[in-house]
Amino acid sequence: MAAAAFRIRRLDPSRFFPPSDPESVLRTHTCGQLRKSDVGTEVTLCGWVENKRDHGGAVFIDLRDRYGLTQVVIGPPEATAAQIENVGRVPAESVILIRGTVSDRLEGKSNAKLATGDIEVRCNEFEILNTCQTPPFTPGQSELPGEDLRLKYRFLDLRRSDMQRSLFLRSKIIKIMRDYFAEHDFVDVETPILGRSTPEGARDYLVPSRVHPGSFYALPQSPQLYKQILMVAGFDRYVQVAKCFRDEDLRADRQPEFTQLDLEMSFVDSDDIMGLIDGLVARTAKEVHGKDIQLPLPRMTYDEAMRRFGHDAPDLRFGMEITDVTEVAKKTEFRVFRATADAGNFVRGLRVENAAEQYSRRQIDELTNFVKDFGAKGLAWFRVEADGSLWSPVAKNFEAEHLDEIKSLMGGQPGDLLMFLADTWEVTCKGLNALRKRLGAELKLYDDDALHCSWVTEFPMFEKDEESGRWNAMHHPFTAPLKSDLEKLGSEPQACRAQAYDLVINGSEAGGGTIRIHDQATQSQVFGLLGIDEATAEDRFGFLLNALRFGAPPHGGIALGIDRWVMLFAGLDNIREVIAFPKTQKASDLMTEAPGNVDDAQLAELHLRTVLPKPKA
Amino acid sequence: MAAAAFRIRRLDPSRFFPPSDPESVLRTHTCGQLRKSDVGTEVTLCGWVENKRDHGGAVFIDLRDRYGLTQVVIGPPEATAAQIENVGRVPAESVILIRGTVSDRLEGKSNAKLATGDIEVRCNEFEILNTCQTPPFTPGQSELPGEDLRLKYRFLDLRRSDMQRSLFLRSKIIKIMRDYFAEHDFVDVETPILGRSTPEGARDYLVPSRVHPGSFYALPQSPQLYKQILMVAGFDRYVQVAKCFRDEDLRADRQPEFTQLDLEMSFVDSDDIMGLIDGLVARTAKEVHGKDIQLPLPRMTYDEAMRRFGHDAPDLRFGMEITDVTEVAKKTEFRVFRATADAGNFVRGLRVENAAEQYSRRQIDELTNFVKDFGAKGLAWFRVEADGSLWSPVAKNFEAEHLDEIKSLMGGQPGDLLMFLADTWEVTCKGLNALRKRLGAELKLYDDDALHCSWVTEFPMFEKDEESGRWNAMHHPFTAPLKSDLEKLGSEPQACRAQAYDLVINGSEAGGGTIRIHDQATQSQVFGLLGIDEATAEDRFGFLLNALRFGAPPHGGIALGIDRWVMLFAGLDNIREVIAFPKTQKASDLMTEAPGNVDDAQLAELHLRTVLPKPKA
Repeated sequence: MAAAAFRIRRLDPSRFFPPSDPESVLRTHTCGQLRKSDVGTEVTLCGWVENKRDHGGAVFIDLRDRYGLTQVVIGPPEATAAQIENVGRVPAESVILIRGTVSDRLEGKSNAKLATGDIEVRCNEFEILNTCQTPPFTPGQSELPGEDLRLKYRFLDLRRSDMQRSLFLRSKIIKIMRDYFAEHDFVDVETPILGRSTPEGARDYLVPSRVHPGSFYALPQSPQLYKQILMVAGFDRYVQVAKCFRDEDLRADRQPEFTQLDLEMSFVDSDDIMGLIDGLVARTAKEVHGKDIQLPLPRMTYDEAMRRFGHDAPDLRFGMEITDVTEVAKKTEFRVFRATADAGNFVRGLRVENAAEQYSRRQIDELTNFVKDFGAKGLAWFRVEADGSLWSPVAKNFEAEHLDEIKSLMGGQPGDLLMFLADTWEVTCKGLNALRKRLGAELKLYDDDALHCSWVTEFPMFEKDEESGRWNAMHHPFTAPLKSDLEKLGSEPQACRAQAYDLVINGSEAGGGTIRIHDQATQSQVFGLLGIDEATAEDRFGFLLNALRFGAPPHGGIALGIDRWVMLFAGLDNIREVIAFPKTQKASDLMTEAPGNVDDAQLAELHLRTVLPKPKA
Repeated sequence: MAAAAFRIRRLDPSRFFPPSDPESVLRTHTCGQLRKSDVGTEVTLCGWVENKRDHGGAVFIDLRDRYGLTQVVIGPPEATAAQIENVGRVPAESVILIRGTVSDRLEGKSNAKLATGDIEVRCNEFEILNTCQTPPFTPGQSELPGEDLRLKYRFLDLRRSDMQRSLFLRSKIIKIMRDYFAEHDFVDVETPILGRSTPEGARDYLVPSRVHPGSFYALPQSPQLYKQILMVAGFDRYVQVAKCFRDEDLRADRQPEFTQLDLEMSFVDSDDIMGLIDGLVARTAKEVHGKDIQLPLPRMTYDEAMRRFGHDAPDLRFGMEITDVTEVAKKTEFRVFRATADAGNFVRGLRVENAAEQYSRRQIDELTNFVKDFGAKGLAWFRVEADGSLWSPVAKNFEAEHLDEIKSLMGGQPGDLLMFLADTWEVTCKGLNALRKRLGAELKLYDDDALHCSWVTEFPMFEKDEESGRWNAMHHPFTAPLKSDLEKLGSEPQACRAQAYDLVINGSEAGGGTIRIHDQATQSQVFGLLGIDEATAEDRFGFLLNALRFGAPPHGGIALGIDRWVMLFAGLDNIREVIAFPKTQKASDLMTEAPGNVDDAQLAELHLRTVLPKPKA
């Protein structure tokens, strides 16, 4: 085995024209490529030492690259005993180059789990391209280290096949999206990252200006205003995979910077946008999972979603819908039910099929505590006995006929649990939604790989801020009301529904959009309702209002949360698993140690001084 | 003509499946779609009123959308006189919806310049979707207003067909790039925008952190370190259309935020990268201009480029190469030439073919002043007379044989001008490059639509900072030296060439890349040469150095300036024409008025106070 020189062979540029050729100059094949038909071929492979095994005087290496794993054998007669020993000392995760001959594996030694499992490469040249220090963890190890360590050594963590798979999937899904919209004549337009701060919505990230002392750019929370401008400019169909930023305290599935598929169309209505996205969902499901999705996707209104599921992003992978028993409650002697119903509030419940045996009284007490986290005062429950009667700690407060009526409304069958909240509409929605989701997961009411996509439409235009008593826009202040509700804008804004639509996948909001207001008069009226006076509106959105005066077409659009979308299609539940370099919940990058300190000179150039909070005593 | 209700028809989602259907619910066709074969069809069109003409008791409207222009006729018998008069009052640039019947144009009224020029639509329903205030300028007007007005009313400016064409081209070129790299197994990975400041290169834009008082993120100047990390992570082929940021004083073709096609590959050398990009150039030229480009693209070394053209991004659309006549200069009596040559400096010149008649003495004086801007002390020149002799104001200082020798070296022919600089290598390069470019343009030595792409390779690793006497990295500190020059790193860094390559299109740098150092030892040696001690290196690039210790493969990459690339392929010379919402040279957005003021409360949350410069007295 000669000490191989680091040979560089010339590349024929025409080699790059046949598509999907992952070969490259230093190697003749990738580690995922060789098959039985290649036996006898001389090959050069490059990759990482995933595993080493000594066996029968030879060293077996599992050589890994992005494309797969190939078994390499360093043994006699190609290598001397000293060479074999040397190779045995190469640290795991080192990068090597080997040359050798593709050979059949010995009888019975094939590995059906591996695409290259029928062959091995008998090595006759071996070169270490780079050694690896003892790593804090290896990509192949079965148990994952803590997430902090993974993020600090992200270059090791990203070698894990799970991470590679989810980032390749991300790349693929974004490509599917781009191709789909290009086919539909969308123009990809980049909107600025250095924009203007608008004190609307979430907190902006600011960027101090050096040239304009005391002035700041803001990173965009979305390209909303720019895409509306593009419609006014006649672009007709705009799309962008856009980076967006929000300086908020982070929940588990939020990141300070996130990516959305952002689009806008002119001369369309809600149905156009939903129909367009229906097609994208179907194509993505087909290309990613090979699944056929029935179109059009199911649609329900916001009111219906709240009534049946208590939430505007219902998880439709399973049933267990909410039933309203307020009318019966009014008639019972059970004080909690009756007082609630008499006060104009609601008694609503879930039928938990066949769950009576699975939930002990102690477990039901636990569920009672659980719903209290969502504002409920308690959980009333009944068990449907074998004889069809309802048993409950509070059953004595009910007449038999009312128990029958409840059972019949709920469709209760022997073995079921019936669970009820008696409270305001909002609390029954929140509590029952949470309870339903928890029970759905605990009782495994859906397949892990189920994918259920649907639309929720006709959201309210406004929601009341209980503290100030003022109206807030439920989506954003540019959302158009339903044409049929236009007259209610003045008289009963609470009843005014929006031309708004959310895409829901597996109980998560995976996108949302609206048809926008395209005339100045309606826009002014909505601003008025939101308590935004003309001067304030001009100051904040002047350029958009200006644009509406110069020939704005009817238009609307949608934004899809790509991180969430990839997470759902990958069947994952941590958004950081689909982002190459995510931030922690403290908005830190543990690998680069961002954010970091900067020189005073840099701050002086930006006309800034830091005012650090006093250390706590 | 009925007052049309704003009818919304239901959309069949399957309509979105056939690709490239630009129709939408409100319209049956676009304004660029109707042909003679559609005559007799009832259609609905939406668009902007580009032009109105009264003629023979009817109103003719040129209705415009992104897809084209259609002539609409509002006249009898479909419309009443009053209706026709009303339509005549609709302001230009208003948005309208019309229904009507496609008709043949009258004999002799066809417009061959227009795709829809054979037909017109006789309108029987007319609706104003939005009126337009009197605009400061119209998209159709022949003379452009000043750029500031265009930027302030960008939504009007973007309606101009020139702007739409260049932004559609941008979208198309980026799509070509993405498709090309996807075919070659590249993975599209998004790297963070909120990164860490490294006091290397240009000035960073900073983003104050709210959660970490006194700490700052920086917007990336490029994804350089992240893409190297991705190679260490085994991604093998990475690509991204990346937003990059530099807080520099802006030149005409620079923007504070710009877009680059960024890629990196493992187990490759310079030839691989250049071969790959060759293919992209050829495909882009073919798909954009229908041109076949001969591959491989020509390559020359940095030394050769400086010798032949005086610049590392030579404009190869025309010849007029530099000739060195230092050896003859040494022999002449002309003090300027001889002293220069004796001092070890250079006398180099250009042969300007057939230019003697086109440049008067006054004009040559102007050229002399021009080259002085580039540090030259003067311009020596000769005219080749009809008899083949050289005439010059300084000819008397030359022996006839030396004049002959000069003419022969330069290949001078009767009617040529020969122009010379006598100075240091650097000044002759700078001056002759500028002179050559100016003369090439003035003498129209190339077609306006010529497209010449080539490579310049083997750049020096280092350039000396004359003030401090220290070495700076010519590309960046991660660039690998040529293997053959590795030993010179220690002994003669000035002679050490890099594995670096720049793509040059029409004399502009359209991209550049390098093979990176993948081992710690070489990286340390280079840092040492650059005067970066170990502690500093760890502080600035710690995570990359760390990554190199854990099994880094040989790797390299390139970044293409997309703004520049689109500008060159579009044949434009202003980068703001290929950016939807560009900033001015003061880094302002005139439409949104960014950057702007922010509330003190926002600054307090960021632990900042502004320190404004004192107003000048």
